[in-house]
Amino acid sequence: MSATTSTVPVSLTALLHGPDQPGLVARASGWIFDQGGNILHADQHRDTEAGIFFQRLEWIPSAAVEPNAAADQFRAFASSLGMQVRVASSTKRARVAIFVSKFDHCFHDLVLRWKAGEFNCDIVTVVSNHPDLAATAAGYGLPYRVIPVTAATKAAAEAKQIALLRELRVDLIIMARYMQVLSADFLANCGAPVINIHHSFLPAFAGGKPYHQAHARGVKLIGATAHYATSDLDEGPIIQQDVARVTHRHEVEDLIRMGRDLEKIVLAQAVRAHLGHRVLVYGNKTVVFD
Amino acid sequence: MSATTSTVPVSLTALLHGPDQPGLVARASGWIFDQGGNILHADQHRDTEAGIFFQRLEWIPSAAVEPNAAADQFRAFASSLGMQVRVASSTKRARVAIFVSKFDHCFHDLVLRWKAGEFNCDIVTVVSNHPDLAATAAGYGLPYRVIPVTAATKAAAEAKQIALLRELRVDLIIMARYMQVLSADFLANCGAPVINIHHSFLPAFAGGKPYHQAHARGVKLIGATAHYATSDLDEGPIIQQDVARVTHRHEVEDLIRMGRDLEKIVLAQAVRAHLGHRVLVYGNKTVVFD
Amino acid sequence: MSATTSTVPVSLTALLHGPDQPGLVARASGWIFDQGGNILHADQHRDTEAGIFFQRLEWIPSAAVEPNAAADQFRAFASSLGMQVRVASSTKRARVAIFVSKFDHCFHDLVLRWKAGEFNCDIVTVVSNHPDLAATAAGYGLPYRVIPVTAATKAAAEAKQIALLRELRVDLIIMARYMQVLSADFLANCGAPVINIHHSFLPAFAGGKPYHQAHARGVKLIGATAHYATSDLDEGPIIQQDVARVTHRHEVEDLIRMGRDLEKIVLAQAVRAHLGHRVLVYGNKTVVFD
Amino acid sequence: MSATTSTVPVSLTALLHGPDQPGLVARASGWIFDQGGNILHADQHRDTEAGIFFQRLEWIPSAAVEPNAAADQFRAFASSLGMQVRVASSTKRARVAIFVSKFDHCFHDLVLRWKAGEFNCDIVTVVSNHPDLAATAAGYGLPYRVIPVTAATKAAAEAKQIALLRELRVDLIIMARYMQVLSADFLANCGAPVINIHHSFLPAFAGGKPYHQAHARGVKLIGATAHYATSDLDEGPIIQQDVARVTHRHEVEDLIRMGRDLEKIVLAQAVRAHLGHRVLVYGNKTVVFD
Repeated sequence: MSATTSTVPVSLTALLHGPDQPGLVARASGWIFDQGGNILHADQHRDTEAGIFFQRLEWIPSAAVEPNAAADQFRAFASSLGMQVRVASSTKRARVAIFVSKFDHCFHDLVLRWKAGEFNCDIVTVVSNHPDLAATAAGYGLPYRVIPVTAATKAAAEAKQIALLRELRVDLIIMARYMQVLSADFLANCGAPVINIHHSFLPAFAGGKPYHQAHARGVKLIGATAHYATSDLDEGPIIQQDVARVTHRHEVEDLIRMGRDLEKIVLAQAVRAHLGHRVLVYGNKTVVFD
Repeated sequence: MSATTSTVPVSLTALLHGPDQPGLVARASGWIFDQGGNILHADQHRDTEAGIFFQRLEWIPSAAVEPNAAADQFRAFASSLGMQVRVASSTKRARVAIFVSKFDHCFHDLVLRWKAGEFNCDIVTVVSNHPDLAATAAGYGLPYRVIPVTAATKAAAEAKQIALLRELRVDLIIMARYMQVLSADFLANCGAPVINIHHSFLPAFAGGKPYHQAHARGVKLIGATAHYATSDLDEGPIIQQDVARVTHRHEVEDLIRMGRDLEKIVLAQAVRAHLGHRVLVYGNKTVVFD
Repeated sequence: MSATTSTVPVSLTALLHGPDQPGLVARASGWIFDQGGNILHADQHRDTEAGIFFQRLEWIPSAAVEPNAAADQFRAFASSLGMQVRVASSTKRARVAIFVSKFDHCFHDLVLRWKAGEFNCDIVTVVSNHPDLAATAAGYGLPYRVIPVTAATKAAAEAKQIALLRELRVDLIIMARYMQVLSADFLANCGAPVINIHHSFLPAFAGGKPYHQAHARGVKLIGATAHYATSDLDEGPIIQQDVARVTHRHEVEDLIRMGRDLEKIVLAQAVRAHLGHRVLVYGNKTVVFD
Repeated sequence: MSATTSTVPVSLTALLHGPDQPGLVARASGWIFDQGGNILHADQHRDTEAGIFFQRLEWIPSAAVEPNAAADQFRAFASSLGMQVRVASSTKRARVAIFVSKFDHCFHDLVLRWKAGEFNCDIVTVVSNHPDLAATAAGYGLPYRVIPVTAATKAAAEAKQIALLRELRVDLIIMARYMQVLSADFLANCGAPVINIHHSFLPAFAGGKPYHQAHARGVKLIGATAHYATSDLDEGPIIQQDVARVTHRHEVEDLIRMGRDLEKIVLAQAVRAHLGHRVLVYGNKTVVFD
């Protein structure tokens, strides 16, 4: 049965950006309207300093057109305006890989939210450098693949990871406290964006042991930051951040405990925004549509 | 010198709402584009449950049209779509009346923000039932009008207030901790919306002495709520709310002190949203565009 | 092996309160010092309006005294000061019952935190009026007891619950979105305090369907409240509250989704405070020591 | 008329810290009790890692002793325990100097809070490197002293500032967006602690133009930090911090506007904590008692 015969109508979501020019707000929505589409949501943003226009459109295409064809037509139209564009169909569920090491709080949180219906995706693999969470993944009915990583084997391990990700046609990689730095090579070849959760309010306390750094500095708030991984460690485009208040009474282990809640919520919000086609990256920044 | 010859181009802002129907997103923006206008911001919302469509549009009309004429044309166009519409020109500064009693924190805060350029308006009068803040208003160079109110004189006092507001062609009334309940009659006849700040997280602790109520109940957060005044006391459409954390250590006077900060910020944010033509009221609720 | 021969020294925690009088701060700490105890933490609070003094003391008693005897001696001493007192030993883990219905988010959250070591307790039973979460509990290795409740069988069901709780010597009952109102009778006879999570910022939106109420009222923040259950529904002493910002864009199902995070965190913080012997109830309020 | 004949009883507040040792909690409170004093508040903290004990005590000394003598006796007692101690009397109002440049928001905020009774101090001078706020200070009835600072005259200007501060016996210097870096020499010789407000969430965005830095990095929260000034710029002990949420829609000028609210509140909270004798500095960190 094809998606077009489903009773819930297929919707398309487009994320566009490109050089600003007069009429852009009206153009894309006008085109959709002219093609018989029904716009559900439209949001736009203009970076006046950089001269870039951003738009997110969600619409139900005319029943007269096959949705994939409608998506292709819109891509061609957007390109003709000089815009970069991605179009996603509501019938396509993203294929997600979760990378973990030994910490399990973000992993449990992501999977339970997924089971509760918060994420429109399939979790197609759990990849780890350690066997520790194999039973946990099995309890959730998720495939778990151990690929050990040492300094000596890192390149080979990443090659295995890439082969797996490509074989599984993964659309999104989530580093759920995966305690390894991904190489620039991996990022260039893994074929999907990577969302990482860093356990500090970046750019404060980049690098290792951020809760220890925060405690040593005596800050009054701790934070967590979800960002797209880039070859510059902890420097990628920020998707979401949050903080919690701490006092002199909190020791490092309290910060670690309190930080787990921040990490879970911030990572989940970033993943949900990404899967909802709400995040546009430009330069080292993001536009996150509501 | 007319506004149209100014070097900063005049912009128009429209707030529309009405029954939802296909094509609305494209219609208004398309119309503006067709008329030679340049859209700066466009935002919309759909209340799917109530079947209402909301839109805020900000644009620079074609230089070929006088802005007031362009506004009139847009009003006619929007009405033809079955939408209720308000259109404001950037050359028109709202005329604001501030009502105060004896508390001065919100009054100072509003005036200092106004002087800092946060509010696009003119403060045309300060009205009070007490003389206490006369010198403060004078220090700011603001006219101050004392209209005493007692139970016996309330109707007459409100008549005087209405006459003053109408004479001054007031567009917005701000109750900056004005400690009097406005009658339904006043609200029906004052000729302008009224924004009130209530010192609790409504609907909790409506009515008098909310900080005392909050302390007696032992809540762990206190709040403030800015809303449009309606004839149902503390029941009007909410524009903005915020809270602050309290503990058992805080006595009523601490709540009052901490609450002042909440009241100032929440009222200022609501006023700024209103003056920026970002608030649409429907039923007992608001849409507040970013 | 008795607790006193353990290598980690046993600590005692006392929660006292009673009529305020000069010298109370010095008395209890002086007594402990005189008995050879080493105070780890001391915190106190004075409700000047009500004339009540509150204190939390945590100390390592002298190695020369058996800890239970030291606790008894302190109880006698505190009573001699006219104070009500509870003393807990670090060797005694609270025995906890979790009540659930069909929603599983708070249940998962509590159990995962417990497994992560955030709660010093044993979960001795999971009680439900529905069989839905039986497999989930089994997956965690927790006993699950179904006691159906209908209007007709409520009294009998509560009698069964009470018998179970007493048999298991339960110290704390957690209502993790248990969708039944407990009777005054149950509360009087269940033998343990009951912590409930209400999905609104009480006293706003008491009663049923609070997210629907919040949406209908158009509030800009939603909340959750953890409180001790009393015979007055949603009126018990508040332990913890928190809020999250919402806009006109959020529909009821969004509030429900966002509220789950609030409910989890607020309930967990309240449970942790209770288990850490940090919560003192007086009248309808709480003192929650840091 | 001496303070001791006043009808409101004089209270003393002591801040102590020193090497941790058994019995410290009981010692100081016991000593005060033995001397006939009545303790109003007692709070303590133990940095177990550093082995330091901290205590704040507030008490009414026996009517039989002159308060200054009671303070001296307590100082001697605390020293005998190996503790560093400061004791302040409620009859002594701190003498405060406010340093400003051209931004006036923190200045207005501090003075209005002071007039509202939030700060127990006298503002004895306003010092600026510019004449811009002279009329504002005069409107508040505050002395205003212009001491211009250029690279060439900085040492001489600081010498003038120090002479003024010493002549006025200033106890606390508040840099209310004073846009000059104070030299190590100034800090060593000005004779009073200096509280500064930095307009970022330190240690993120230290140095100049933090809102521009934050905008360029694309953070989702902006912050403000109040800290004691030290010779390492932006590295001093943090007293208070707070953040506000921003999105891609906010331009630098929005961050500056929103940041003003953060700066005002964070600076005011830090000043209030300092004036209430609630802040103890050790190493590069603070203990801030509630």
